[in-house]
Amino acid sequence: MSTRIPVGLVGVTGYTGMELARILAGHPDLELVRATSRSEAGKKLSVLYPFLSGPGDLGRMGEIVVSQPDPADLAASCALVFLAVPHKTAMEIAAALIEKGVKVVDLSADFRIRDRETYEKWYAVEHTQTALLAEAVYGLPELYRDKVRKARLVANPGCYPTSAILGLAPALEKGLIHIDDIVIDAKSGTTGAGRKASVGNLYCEVADNFRAYNLTKHRHTPEIEQEVSILAGQDIELSFNTHLLPIGRGILSTIYTRLTAQLSVADVHALYAERYKDEPMVRVLPIGTLPETRWVRGTLFCDIGLAVDERLGRLIILSAIDNVCRGASGQAVANANLMLGLAETMGLPTAPLMP
Amino acid sequence: MSTRIPVGLVGVTGYTGMELARILAGHPDLELVRATSRSEAGKKLSVLYPFLSGPGDLGRMGEIVVSQPDPADLAASCALVFLAVPHKTAMEIAAALIEKGVKVVDLSADFRIRDRETYEKWYAVEHTQTALLAEAVYGLPELYRDKVRKARLVANPGCYPTSAILGLAPALEKGLIHIDDIVIDAKSGTTGAGRKASVGNLYCEVADNFRAYNLTKHRHTPEIEQEVSILAGQDIELSFNTHLLPIGRGILSTIYTRLTAQLSVADVHALYAERYKDEPMVRVLPIGTLPETRWVRGTLFCDIGLAVDERLGRLIILSAIDNVCRGASGQAVANANLMLGLAETMGLPTAPLMP
Amino acid sequence: MSTRIPVGLVGVTGYTGMELARILAGHPDLELVRATSRSEAGKKLSVLYPFLSGPGDLGRMGEIVVSQPDPADLAASCALVFLAVPHKTAMEIAAALIEKGVKVVDLSADFRIRDRETYEKWYAVEHTQTALLAEAVYGLPELYRDKVRKARLVANPGCYPTSAILGLAPALEKGLIHIDDIVIDAKSGTTGAGRKASVGNLYCEVADNFRAYNLTKHRHTPEIEQEVSILAGQDIELSFNTHLLPIGRGILSTIYTRLTAQLSVADVHALYAERYKDEPMVRVLPIGTLPETRWVRGTLFCDIGLAVDERLGRLIILSAIDNVCRGASGQAVANANLMLGLAETMGLPTAPLMP
Amino acid sequence: MSTRIPVGLVGVTGYTGMELARILAGHPDLELVRATSRSEAGKKLSVLYPFLSGPGDLGRMGEIVVSQPDPADLAASCALVFLAVPHKTAMEIAAALIEKGVKVVDLSADFRIRDRETYEKWYAVEHTQTALLAEAVYGLPELYRDKVRKARLVANPGCYPTSAILGLAPALEKGLIHIDDIVIDAKSGTTGAGRKASVGNLYCEVADNFRAYNLTKHRHTPEIEQEVSILAGQDIELSFNTHLLPIGRGILSTIYTRLTAQLSVADVHALYAERYKDEPMVRVLPIGTLPETRWVRGTLFCDIGLAVDERLGRLIILSAIDNVCRGASGQAVANANLMLGLAETMGLPTAPLMP
Repeated sequence: MSTRIPVGLVGVTGYTGMELARILAGHPDLELVRATSRSEAGKKLSVLYPFLSGPGDLGRMGEIVVSQPDPADLAASCALVFLAVPHKTAMEIAAALIEKGVKVVDLSADFRIRDRETYEKWYAVEHTQTALLAEAVYGLPELYRDKVRKARLVANPGCYPTSAILGLAPALEKGLIHIDDIVIDAKSGTTGAGRKASVGNLYCEVADNFRAYNLTKHRHTPEIEQEVSILAGQDIELSFNTHLLPIGRGILSTIYTRLTAQLSVADVHALYAERYKDEPMVRVLPIGTLPETRWVRGTLFCDIGLAVDERLGRLIILSAIDNVCRGASGQAVANANLMLGLAETMGLPTAPLMP
Repeated sequence: MSTRIPVGLVGVTGYTGMELARILAGHPDLELVRATSRSEAGKKLSVLYPFLSGPGDLGRMGEIVVSQPDPADLAASCALVFLAVPHKTAMEIAAALIEKGVKVVDLSADFRIRDRETYEKWYAVEHTQTALLAEAVYGLPELYRDKVRKARLVANPGCYPTSAILGLAPALEKGLIHIDDIVIDAKSGTTGAGRKASVGNLYCEVADNFRAYNLTKHRHTPEIEQEVSILAGQDIELSFNTHLLPIGRGILSTIYTRLTAQLSVADVHALYAERYKDEPMVRVLPIGTLPETRWVRGTLFCDIGLAVDERLGRLIILSAIDNVCRGASGQAVANANLMLGLAETMGLPTAPLMP
Repeated sequence: MSTRIPVGLVGVTGYTGMELARILAGHPDLELVRATSRSEAGKKLSVLYPFLSGPGDLGRMGEIVVSQPDPADLAASCALVFLAVPHKTAMEIAAALIEKGVKVVDLSADFRIRDRETYEKWYAVEHTQTALLAEAVYGLPELYRDKVRKARLVANPGCYPTSAILGLAPALEKGLIHIDDIVIDAKSGTTGAGRKASVGNLYCEVADNFRAYNLTKHRHTPEIEQEVSILAGQDIELSFNTHLLPIGRGILSTIYTRLTAQLSVADVHALYAERYKDEPMVRVLPIGTLPETRWVRGTLFCDIGLAVDERLGRLIILSAIDNVCRGASGQAVANANLMLGLAETMGLPTAPLMP
Repeated sequence: MSTRIPVGLVGVTGYTGMELARILAGHPDLELVRATSRSEAGKKLSVLYPFLSGPGDLGRMGEIVVSQPDPADLAASCALVFLAVPHKTAMEIAAALIEKGVKVVDLSADFRIRDRETYEKWYAVEHTQTALLAEAVYGLPELYRDKVRKARLVANPGCYPTSAILGLAPALEKGLIHIDDIVIDAKSGTTGAGRKASVGNLYCEVADNFRAYNLTKHRHTPEIEQEVSILAGQDIELSFNTHLLPIGRGILSTIYTRLTAQLSVADVHALYAERYKDEPMVRVLPIGTLPETRWVRGTLFCDIGLAVDERLGRLIILSAIDNVCRGASGQAVANANLMLGLAETMGLPTAPLMP
């Protein structure tokens, strides 16, 4: 008889749903008891995902029968529910669950943008849950850990924003850089495009290719600007641009900034190391070591590397995460841990799969 | 004013259509004048495929406006038409075009299987053009070159069969192997799965993965058995099994056979080299050199390597092709060349893109 | 103060060494206390592998200073030592360690082949530790679990043999197949080629390519033949042939056999399921489901799929493992667990990283 | 009896040498008659590169026996020689060849940097051929076409500089952007790292990974700054930073600039289209279309895409090339064509291999 805390997952068929299943299969204190999908209801998880079979927790998880998303049933069986469904859909389910007293970690964008108009402009839908919007906590533990602990509803950050905000935070908090000349050149693995059928994401269209997309208009822009403005104490507009990598998992953001004072890389590194010295999920790499997406593969780490171009007075910040784990499901579990009174990194993998 | 022979392409949106466009863009004697697609009609080719722009023939090809497939229009404007549409659809268009006096190279399976019942059993559709079926020539130049030259309708061979038949032909013609113990372990790049949206062929499902599929029931089985039976002069049933490679182009078939006599690899190699010595599109590699899919990338070559396991009396034949070029569109152009009185390899690339 | 059992690793710079570090970083009962490398001695592990940093066990492991391999030091500090060094080197170190009372799991081939002459013929070196050779236990738990528990020296199986032997065992034990007509068409990811600088294994030589290698003469042949002969109770010679996949981890062996009696896939599946029903590291997939290398990525599982070609009386067995985990370091830890009185799968990941 | 112009290749074993062989195999007016390599002398090219066999020019090229680099022999047999050897080695061979009256296209960096001190600082070797340095022409046809036509010695541009300079040229010539705030975020396929054995470029280290390298100190920086300063008529220092892509061929440079005036993307596009309208090897893509590395694979094209972020007053320029073809060997052949009085794009592929 399990004494683990029961949790549910709404939306099991995408990569974030799959990753949540992977993480929960090894979690000592949380147990997945519900998994829902409108299209796959009625199937065992082990039929959807044959790798969810075998002995122990893995096999037990595979025995779960996918159900239709039913707030009453979820509320009756789960202490917390993860929402891995598209935006707009998420806000409605979140409201129904919160009303019934279940805690929610929402992996969609619905509760990330505090300003309703900004949300509605960038996402082109109406926000129908403004009371919850005001209550939701932005689930980046390095910035809002204490609020997450008390939250009923956590807006799990976007993948690019997680990487960008953690990369910029120390520089902005300390006023190291000019806030009107920030360029983020971000590159993401293809899991970021989701698991729906589309010609553009076929193997033969992505492999051995590289391209930019959504230049100047990616929806993560207002989310990043919101948080870095808070960090800087001033409104910031920045240039955020995205590229598609022929890899599965991983985001590397190369962030170009101009220093406000003449600082060496050692100076900047010392400030970053100090800022993150007690953070269990951020690693400031040694001077001269630049992050690689594989070093964070399957883990919660955000790895940060620093370079100063003294000739030009520029600071270049490199920030790498696994977009599926730190940028989505792993961070969701860290938030759930906090919301349920567990240690933040409980059950989360730390050693990357290399190679 | 071009004096090249005008040809058309029915079905421009798949990988075989794209490859035909690539090859025809550099062909000195054929000119693409029509490209059809039900879903994309009205667009310029350069909008569908931005790489079809620039100076010369490439840019001119990009100016073609995709049209609805119309046999009358195709017949009025083209000397020959390539069909790159699914089976069943192909047989109807082929009949309409042949009737109007246009030559046809059909890249579908509709006219490959001589026995109507076998076709209908494996493809689960009715064959409505049995007269044409009797007339169609199987377009493997190494076996049917003279017939192709005189044909109105050529059934362009399947990708796996091209690789398997060319690998087995010399051994069967010379009676080197037992015909009741042939195993073909075939591996194909993902272009073979086509260019339609599907979850199973997404980058994140195919990359860094390997799997078998359709074991014991791939539709290319009867096509291979038909041709190797003719070569051997006896009915052959063989074990043909397929795997999906995380590469774009390329098929490697590893063919396991048992020798009927004690032969060295030098003996077998001499017979293979002799069989193919005048063939412009087959290369029997030196003893000790095994084919690699990249060596035939983008070309018409079928590269064959041989190993004899003297301990076990086995002959292992390796046969590599580019499934999109030799296994589809390039072979289609070679057949068109023959049908139009041109040199077989006219306009066809010989040097692979390496790497 | 750790109460975990201290273990050492000789040869930390290859992929098997890296994988051991990954697994031990999450092991509740084993603690890595020594890591040796002739070329890298003196460096911290976190310098060699920047991903070995951060909080907890991962960071502590990164603090280990790589040392020269010194049997006295290893014996004084470790209860068990893993050898991840080339064959021939391994046999000498193993002997020195065993003599000092340390248990050894040898990942090289030195103690796998029971017949000294066979070993010397295939590996072209002299075996200088024949007494130990007689004592060593072949570390495939499904076959030798009880002996492993009592062993001082375990010969960790080769990657291909692990996959091939587990795939064939039930069929041979039950006499389902003809033993004189077994063909193993094996495909391996590139980690199998090791982590030494070589042009042939450069990214640009391996990516988007596929090829066979070592046909008819791979050194794993006698290892497979030794074990399948024991299983069948008769000498078996078989055709074992290998291919290089453009993936990192994973082996898929497609094993072609002929049935001795008319059996359906359901018959064969029932026998396989029964044989492995209590095995924690083997999964016989449902009928109709074929294994994929990604489903075992990073795990100990050997996934087995079955197809029967009733037309030809053939049984095709598919066997997938992660060559670095089940085929090397993970299996080594399972063996260490058994040798040290722990549960076999203690500390071993079960959920694959997908995608 | 060939009437093609005989050319030689010094350094056949790297990717640029291989690519020259590929291009020359299909060139109607140039014939490769010498290929040298210190390490491989004595072997036929078809032994080094089994894909250089078959009928016609391809097979004839394979028959060439690799020789030691001998200026006298090269001068006696060739009208022009391509140097595909490392810097420093190249300058010595170039001088010996020029002295004997042979034209030279040098693919190394030795004659790209006009200022000897800058060269010596960034490349850390002494420049011993300063007279030739003064004479050499920088072989970017779009900027120096007329000079290339008359040159004895052409310094073939670096791969990254080709992409960056062509991307920036129109904006600088027209004064559209601030010259003190240019950031180039460049990403290159792994062919750029060369074909020497190294652990860092192994398949398993590069695949499914992404990382920056050489931040703030890549040797192509002074080459780019030299040419863009000439274009702007003022000294420019810029931020140039490089990343390694898990693809074979291709560079995509994302260039971040600030507009000097309020311009729409249509305004900028019109200026770029006008600047390059007669250029056979540059394509300014339609507004809204962003370049992809696959669209230029194997070709001479530099594809340029444009985005204007009106909110921030920024112009983002995307510039894609095939680093092996346009960034090295293909551009070298274009330069040779010009030097030998042929049409610039003679023999150069235009249709990319897709996929």
